[in-house]
Amino acid sequence: MTSKRIARVRQELRNLRLDAFLVTALPHVRYLTGFSGTNGLSLITPRRHLFFSDSRYKRQAQAEVHGATHHITQRELIDEAGRTAAGRTPVRIGFEAAHCTVMQHRLLRKSAGKSTLVPTTGVMEQIVAVKERDEVSAITRALRISERVLDHLLPMIRPGVSELDLAAEISYQHKRFGADGDAFPPLVASGARSAFPHAKPTGNRIRSGQIVLLDFGCSINGYNSDMTRTVVVGRVPAGVRKMYSAVLEARDRAIDAIRPGIRASVIDGVARRVLDARGLGELFVHSLGHGVGLSVHERPRISSLSSETLESGYVVTIEPGVYRPGVGGIRIEDIVCLTRRGSRVLTKAGRTLLVV
Amino acid sequence: MTSKRIARVRQELRNLRLDAFLVTALPHVRYLTGFSGTNGLSLITPRRHLFFSDSRYKRQAQAEVHGATHHITQRELIDEAGRTAAGRTPVRIGFEAAHCTVMQHRLLRKSAGKSTLVPTTGVMEQIVAVKERDEVSAITRALRISERVLDHLLPMIRPGVSELDLAAEISYQHKRFGADGDAFPPLVASGARSAFPHAKPTGNRIRSGQIVLLDFGCSINGYNSDMTRTVVVGRVPAGVRKMYSAVLEARDRAIDAIRPGIRASVIDGVARRVLDARGLGELFVHSLGHGVGLSVHERPRISSLSSETLESGYVVTIEPGVYRPGVGGIRIEDIVCLTRRGSRVLTKAGRTLLVV
Repeated sequence: MTSKRIARVRQELRNLRLDAFLVTALPHVRYLTGFSGTNGLSLITPRRHLFFSDSRYKRQAQAEVHGATHHITQRELIDEAGRTAAGRTPVRIGFEAAHCTVMQHRLLRKSAGKSTLVPTTGVMEQIVAVKERDEVSAITRALRISERVLDHLLPMIRPGVSELDLAAEISYQHKRFGADGDAFPPLVASGARSAFPHAKPTGNRIRSGQIVLLDFGCSINGYNSDMTRTVVVGRVPAGVRKMYSAVLEARDRAIDAIRPGIRASVIDGVARRVLDARGLGELFVHSLGHGVGLSVHERPRISSLSSETLESGYVVTIEPGVYRPGVGGIRIEDIVCLTRRGSRVLTKAGRTLLVV
Repeated sequence: MTSKRIARVRQELRNLRLDAFLVTALPHVRYLTGFSGTNGLSLITPRRHLFFSDSRYKRQAQAEVHGATHHITQRELIDEAGRTAAGRTPVRIGFEAAHCTVMQHRLLRKSAGKSTLVPTTGVMEQIVAVKERDEVSAITRALRISERVLDHLLPMIRPGVSELDLAAEISYQHKRFGADGDAFPPLVASGARSAFPHAKPTGNRIRSGQIVLLDFGCSINGYNSDMTRTVVVGRVPAGVRKMYSAVLEARDRAIDAIRPGIRASVIDGVARRVLDARGLGELFVHSLGHGVGLSVHERPRISSLSSETLESGYVVTIEPGVYRPGVGGIRIEDIVCLTRRGSRVLTKAGRTLLVV
């Protein structure tokens, strides 16, 4: 499978007339090599695949990385890889401009001698965006675990329990149910704090009548789940119920419309129009969704500003939300896989407002 | 306190003859503003402090960031900040070369018009390396929580429990004891896997006679703890006891020697010589330590290759280790604060080999 992936990179080498390509983003390195450590780099040429890491990871690399020549170095990886890529005669070396700092670029500039450095953007992003079957299963397995965690959590959501207690429980149960760990620190926001789309959990204790917004995910073999559900404790205010049904309709319309060949901005517009029609458009302060895989946020970005077109094999979140300052927020987030004919929702958890 | 920090940045503006400085590394932005979100940027001029973020963080920024003018934008932050910094007449704009990608640099190049972009390295790193009293207390509080977690964990370490079970418990108890969360995913490595200095926890179950290496930390208000202890389950093989006493001596000698004005490479050498003398030098495959604060790994790097000199106010880990392939590894990691006269060990947990 890895060799198929390397073949796709080599196709890009030909398209971009490159003699070598340096992959520095860790999720991309993992995609090409299986390496799960925190310091690794892949160098791909038409005939060779070299993997660079440091001495801490020598043995881990032996266990994880097959089909590539290993270079263990004490130097900065990009320096060492630059020397190796440059060789004796000047060549064209591509690098990931979005995943290479200006400082690394200076090191690379020196080590590459007379070779030409070619900044590229989106090469690996485009390759990893189209998921293979195994990747979709890994994401799905991660989702199933997060869904079990939600089931386990619901009875705990009652007056007196704190946001941090719930966040701790989510992380704990993710691991107990077999995930490698959280995909990102769980968001648990209650009451007026749920109106902050990215509120971190606090010691605040849940009170009756409050909204509790839960956004969490876990990872399996590096692949991430991501889901959001909104819970109300006790009696549901009529205003909240209205907001919820609007958000749910936005989610449903967007998912009905999603298919290969459609522009991401169009899908964002579908959801936004539903909320606009209910007078809630201004409270939908973020974009509709994003790709998910070895990174929690990857291509495509599903927003009004996106210029991307959706393709078969993309796995994306659809997560409309509305946030009323001082009152609270509502968000529903599901994951959808684009298929040849349309799409398939990977998230199985129920979508009705959860009342506990 | 924040204004004192801004004053230190302004001093650097004068030293580097800059009209503006863009701070893009999130821990540095947090240091200057208190902002705890995932997308923020500070622009500092001799008279102004501007803070940039996106609409998701508008209200969080209002709550967290004081003393700076807020700019909420849908554009890339560096693009917006570049426009603002450039103004009408060309100026010199400094940026963090180690925390700005080549792609961001291109955006900045365009938005800054005729202004000069000045790559800088280590400006903020040097400022954050010297801790204020409140910062040392936050790190110490985080350490106390991790130590309570260790006490809580020891009775759980027995044959049959898995590495993942223990890792889940560490994360859970960090939060239950009041931390914001883990500083990094806990490392729990048993038996031969403990010979991988950065092994991730697996479903492997602990067996009698095995080494269990625990490396974990938590964060409070963004400040991190980091500690490593080595546990043996049941009878301790004589070879393991010998290795342990060598590592402990390396730790003790290094800490005895650490003081302001000494080079980091000299401290690394002190520990390395102890292990060399016991024939274990080749098994000490990583550097001796690193600064810790708002980042888990920050300046200084305490290694044979480091050119840095230690200063009063630095907070660093001292973590010698030896790793015998196929057998197991031992590491002891404490945190030390450099004082005017010498140093103070912040870690209180016992340092003898833990046998359960």
